[in-house]
Amino acid sequence: MVRYVGVGNMVRLIGAVGIEPYLTGLAGYIEEDFRRWAAFEKAPRVASHSSDGVIELMPTSDGALYGFKYVNGHPRNTRAGLQTVTAFGVLADVGTGYPRLLAEMTIATALRTAATSALAARYLARRDAAVMAIIGLGSQSEFQALAFKALLGIRRLRVHDIDPAATAKFLANLAPHGFDIAVAPSAGEAVLGADIVTTVTADKQKATILSDNMVGAGLHINAVGGDCPGKTELARDILARADVFVELPEQTRIEGEIQQMPADFPVTELWRVIAGEAPGRRAPDQITLFDSVGFATEDFSALRYLDDRIEGTDFYEEIDLLTEPQDPRDLFGLLAPATPRTRTAAGAR
Amino acid sequence: MVRYVGVGNMVRLIGAVGIEPYLTGLAGYIEEDFRRWAAFEKAPRVASHSSDGVIELMPTSDGALYGFKYVNGHPRNTRAGLQTVTAFGVLADVGTGYPRLLAEMTIATALRTAATSALAARYLARRDAAVMAIIGLGSQSEFQALAFKALLGIRRLRVHDIDPAATAKFLANLAPHGFDIAVAPSAGEAVLGADIVTTVTADKQKATILSDNMVGAGLHINAVGGDCPGKTELARDILARADVFVELPEQTRIEGEIQQMPADFPVTELWRVIAGEAPGRRAPDQITLFDSVGFATEDFSALRYLDDRIEGTDFYEEIDLLTEPQDPRDLFGLLAPATPRTRTAAGAR
Repeated sequence: MVRYVGVGNMVRLIGAVGIEPYLTGLAGYIEEDFRRWAAFEKAPRVASHSSDGVIELMPTSDGALYGFKYVNGHPRNTRAGLQTVTAFGVLADVGTGYPRLLAEMTIATALRTAATSALAARYLARRDAAVMAIIGLGSQSEFQALAFKALLGIRRLRVHDIDPAATAKFLANLAPHGFDIAVAPSAGEAVLGADIVTTVTADKQKATILSDNMVGAGLHINAVGGDCPGKTELARDILARADVFVELPEQTRIEGEIQQMPADFPVTELWRVIAGEAPGRRAPDQITLFDSVGFATEDFSALRYLDDRIEGTDFYEEIDLLTEPQDPRDLFGLLAPATPRTRTAAGAR
Repeated sequence: MVRYVGVGNMVRLIGAVGIEPYLTGLAGYIEEDFRRWAAFEKAPRVASHSSDGVIELMPTSDGALYGFKYVNGHPRNTRAGLQTVTAFGVLADVGTGYPRLLAEMTIATALRTAATSALAARYLARRDAAVMAIIGLGSQSEFQALAFKALLGIRRLRVHDIDPAATAKFLANLAPHGFDIAVAPSAGEAVLGADIVTTVTADKQKATILSDNMVGAGLHINAVGGDCPGKTELARDILARADVFVELPEQTRIEGEIQQMPADFPVTELWRVIAGEAPGRRAPDQITLFDSVGFATEDFSALRYLDDRIEGTDFYEEIDLLTEPQDPRDLFGLLAPATPRTRTAAGAR
């Protein structure tokens, strides 16, 4: 049998663990996997583009476990009351090829994206960072806020969204979580006095959520929303002034903010910083930028963490996704006994 | 909610429909999809190789539906009582990116492979073909036999396996299905007098299940077992004498029997024959060879057929693989209500 964690059990699990402890634990797994980067099979995602959006498969393996995520991105879905992004994932044993865990990953992706952002910021933001601006208060925003609270102790937020309803939703959702939140009438005003800026807007286009004059010395920019070809959030000049950190360069050059830059634009791989092979922040006035697009190893970490967390609990079901013939060469034998029985049942109806 | 067809429901469904009608219906969908080949996004499978085997993702799309299959191949699994191949698949809507069907595909793959083989033989074997040899009586063999019976009316089989237990299993499984079966002590003797030869052995190595002197004029060879790098079943000389038909040439040149041949070895795409753009069999003494490796469109057809067959039935469940927030931008809201409730429940335990 394969373990199955649907939305219901994911919600129950996070409720039982608490979202901040869950994010902290998850960030630990992500950090551990970044540290052993060389162990992973890494390839850009496999994308199927259409006029409405994209469907992607993101596989990776560390030689013992194999994981992949299915994820879509359909910016116009919200018009029909649907989500722009949904996802699920599978963890399998490399030795046998058997899947062991199937899980919803819409929530899990929001969690891992936020955990990765906060993890990166722990290496890249100023130690004394206390105020974060969030531009874009859509479905990822609360997760980002809570990850930065859990991992960096950030409690002061300055937030902006062009849609007042999104702002209201954000404030209501975070009301019980102990933040000090200032709502700003523009992105420019949100950024004032912030040590960290998270951009996480949803429009699928080249936008300029941050312009060059908004970005002062010492800022860390957590650029989450620019994550596919044609979708960016930052003015090109910001990239030229910042030190840019990325997950997998060949993927980020296509999907991230740096799609605006030449192919040889210098970047630092985040894993090198985490593994101690490259410096993170070197000076208080340096502008650092994490050009987040999301990489398969982070989903792998999320699945691995989930698989460990549900061990010994009732936060999963078992489903019959795999045949289990008594004799592995007798697949057909699974059908044989059912044939007469089911026919009788059908005939009796 | 996403429709889920596990092994239990797949077995019930096939029992209710009958395996031969199921194979015939499935072959119709495969044929229809081969006929509109240009509509599909086609790429070689995405493989993750290890010392024990391979895990693959096989995606495709026709612009309206997107499908992918997860499938492993682990030849040594049988030693541990596990299957060498297991699979599952997903069908999704291209317009929204939402998955609509998750299904077991271990059984479904055996069915689609057999249906594709029989479909190819309808275009490539002699019209008067009446006797089929099957070399290799493992988990695929009964499906192959029944597909050739359902689609071509083949009732006379000559079979061989090096393992008597496999032969006994094959005979027992097909006893109720109206075949006339002769067991041969060697592959060479099985082939004598056969109009069609199906090779479907499991060893992951370069083998010579058929040597050149076994292959007479007019034969159609359905080469199923040679399906990954380093795994072939036929002597090279046979390929040189035969007209070879393939699914996707760039994939088959790596995985199929023709991996033994130069990169410019001439082949004909099966879809061209089905679409009437290329001849199939041209003469009674021609040797035809379907170098089957399995392609993503066939899995797509299998998922599409399954999705249509379960419509209005109870042969599926609905599972909560996708979040469904009331406000699509309020993903976090799904977590909020659960937090206090689940904590109370946990505290009460």
